[in-house]
Amino acid sequence: MGRWEPNTRERLAEAALELYGERGYEQTTVAEIAGRAGLTERTFFRHYGDKREVLFAGSGELEDLFARAVAGAPESAAPLDAVGAGLDAVGASFAGRRDFARARQAVIMANAELRERELVKLAAIAAALARTLRGRGVPEPAASLAAEAGVAVFKVGFERWIGPGEKRAMPPLLREALAELRAVAARP
Amino acid sequence: MGRWEPNTRERLAEAALELYGERGYEQTTVAEIAGRAGLTERTFFRHYGDKREVLFAGSGELEDLFARAVAGAPESAAPLDAVGAGLDAVGASFAGRRDFARARQAVIMANAELRERELVKLAAIAAALARTLRGRGVPEPAASLAAEAGVAVFKVGFERWIGPGEKRAMPPLLREALAELRAVAARP
Repeated sequence: MGRWEPNTRERLAEAALELYGERGYEQTTVAEIAGRAGLTERTFFRHYGDKREVLFAGSGELEDLFARAVAGAPESAAPLDAVGAGLDAVGASFAGRRDFARARQAVIMANAELRERELVKLAAIAAALARTLRGRGVPEPAASLAAEAGVAVFKVGFERWIGPGEKRAMPPLLREALAELRAVAARP
Repeated sequence: MGRWEPNTRERLAEAALELYGERGYEQTTVAEIAGRAGLTERTFFRHYGDKREVLFAGSGELEDLFARAVAGAPESAAPLDAVGAGLDAVGASFAGRRDFARARQAVIMANAELRERELVKLAAIAAALARTLRGRGVPEPAASLAAEAGVAVFKVGFERWIGPGEKRAMPPLLREALAELRAVAARP
């Protein structure tokens, strides 16, 4: 990316989200997105493969960040504590992105194909976490269960974070959701 | 369904699974499924809307059964104990269906569109369980977390049940997975 195009990627993503919100995802074309951002279609395609990728480009990074933080947790950490370290890293990475996340979620919830894509991405994150935990020596089924629990906590904490009027940062919301999961799973 | 067509639905499902396994899901036509079962296409369409529905016709029943058992758990049951009652009911309903489930899973894993459909069905089950738990007075986020945990336990237990050489019935495998989830979530 040349220096004559500062924040091009972000400008394109914001223009896309605006248009998806205004006229619907299906009705928006790449030409319109580029136009709204004051850029060309060619520039769009240097940054995104298609208009769907604007919504999911961050999913791969999220998976990597989550898995790397789990892998990097202290060797002595129990499986769900390692997942908690991953949740902290993930939560921190969303700082300053709440408005974008809210707009993105509204677009995704309005479109069945995008909801399916989101479920596929979350399933890929769970699979990556389970692999990472097995790499830490966690046996099955504990690895898969801790991984699925981590994704459930992320989903619940994320939904709270984008909820109407919510002001708290994501990390404490994720920590709260993890504590709640532990409470739900505790034998009375 | 007339009495002159005993087990028609099951015969069609078995024929479909055989063909999906032999030549692939995409390559199989409804006419071939009906032919293999010794029935007509018209009969097929009296039982299934299309060839995909053969694989997912049971998902709605599974969701209902799971949610009804959670709803019917003793009033005093904690959220995850109510989910456990649901898992028992679900596990019992799979008795005698292991070969079909194995064949079905192989078809689904080989096709991205079917994998997405399966994730959508599991997400629908989690949403139904969360609704049911809220109906039992469980607040959020405990309801969603217990629901997601229940689906995670189902997935993990189900995968064990269809695993190579596995002979145990599904209910004890689901109970084991639930106990494992509790152990994973327990503070050390």
